[in-house]
Amino acid sequence: MRNEGLLIVLSGPSGSGKDTIISRVLDALGDEGFLSVSMTTRPRRGTEVDGVDYYFVTPEQFRENVENDLMLEYAQYGANFYGTPVGPVRHLLAQGKTVILNIEVQGGKNVRRLIPEAIEIFVAPPSLQELERRLIKRGTETRDAIDRRLLIAQAELQCAADYDYIVINDVLEDAVDDVLAIIRASRLKSELSISRIREVMNHVES
Amino acid sequence: MRNEGLLIVLSGPSGSGKDTIISRVLDALGDEGFLSVSMTTRPRRGTEVDGVDYYFVTPEQFRENVENDLMLEYAQYGANFYGTPVGPVRHLLAQGKTVILNIEVQGGKNVRRLIPEAIEIFVAPPSLQELERRLIKRGTETRDAIDRRLLIAQAELQCAADYDYIVINDVLEDAVDDVLAIIRASRLKSELSISRIREVMNHVES
Repeated sequence: MRNEGLLIVLSGPSGSGKDTIISRVLDALGDEGFLSVSMTTRPRRGTEVDGVDYYFVTPEQFRENVENDLMLEYAQYGANFYGTPVGPVRHLLAQGKTVILNIEVQGGKNVRRLIPEAIEIFVAPPSLQELERRLIKRGTETRDAIDRRLLIAQAELQCAADYDYIVINDVLEDAVDDVLAIIRASRLKSELSISRIREVMNHVES
Repeated sequence: MRNEGLLIVLSGPSGSGKDTIISRVLDALGDEGFLSVSMTTRPRRGTEVDGVDYYFVTPEQFRENVENDLMLEYAQYGANFYGTPVGPVRHLLAQGKTVILNIEVQGGKNVRRLIPEAIEIFVAPPSLQELERRLIKRGTETRDAIDRRLLIAQAELQCAADYDYIVINDVLEDAVDDVLAIIRASRLKSELSISRIREVMNHVES
C-alpha cells in the first residue's frame, strides 16, 4: 500500500519571512516537495507559463471552480481573483508528495474542510518591533503602509492558536529546520505510516 | 508564561533497538532530556543508587502508589514489581523538560489517562526476519526463547496503530533523527507554543 502525501499550509504576517522559509524548505525536500500553483484571473505577463507560475483562467472559469467547491481557498485583490484549485494538490498527494501551500492567514479554515489531514503552520516574527524593522529595511513601502501592515499583523497573530504548529522566525536557519522537523514528524504519524507495519509483518519490501 | 515540557513514550518489541535509540536521543538532548526513573520492589544491587537507577521501595509502598493512582504504568516480572511513578515525571515537565519513558507495549494507555499530552512512539524493526537476525546475533538466548520473542513481537506490532508515531529502526541514525524530529515538532505544537505569541505581541523576552 502506498503512503499518502502531506499537505503543509504556511501562513503568517507579511514580513514574517515565510516566503524565504518556503523556498529553503523546497530546496531541502528536492523531488519530494512541491509548491502548489495558484489559479488567477489576472492576465499572463511576459515569460509566465500557464500551469507553472499560475493557472490562468477567465473570471467565468474561476467562478465555476468556486461554485463547484473546487477551490481550497481564494481571495480578491483589486479586480483580480487568486486561489488554490484542489485538483492538482490532490493529484500530488496521491503520489505521496509533500505539497506546500502559501496562503493568507484565515484561508486555512477552508483548506481543512476540504483536506482535513492538512498540517497548518503559523510563521511569526520574533516581535512586532522586529517585524517593523524588517518592513522598513525592505524600503518598498511608505510609513503609512508599514503602519497598516503592523496593525494587520497584530490581528493575524491572534489567529496563531488555530494552527497546528507555531514557528517563530528569529534565526532563519532554525525556522527552516523547525518546518523540516514538522514535515519529517508528520510523515511518521501512525495514520500515515501504519501501512509500513503491515510490510514489517509480511516482509513486503517498500 | 512558561512552556510545559514534553513526555515522550517509547515502546517496541524486544530487539527493535529502542534502548539504543533512547540513549542516542538523550545524548542529543543534553540538559533538556531526562529518562524517567522506574520504581521497583527488587533489592538494590552493588553500586545502584536510589533515585538514579531506580526508586527502591517495599512491596507495601509500591502497592500504596498503585492504589493512590500514582503510577503511570507498572508490571510484575517474577516476584518483583516495576513501574513509573508519576510525581517525578510531572516535576520535570513543569520545568519544561523533555522526559523519555521506555515502557512495554500497551503500558501507554494508562500513561495517556494520567498525562493526556504524552507523545507515544512505536519503534518497529524493518522486518520480522531482521528482528530474528538481531536476536540471534545477541547470542544471549536459546532458540526457544527467540521464537517466543518473535511471537510476542508479532502481537505487539498489532498495537502500533494505537501510537501517535511509528519509527522503523532500519538505519539507527535515521531512527534517532526521526525521534528527534518528533520531539522538535512537538515543542512547536500551538498548544505548547501559544505563549510565545503573547511574547511576540508584548515584546516580553523569553
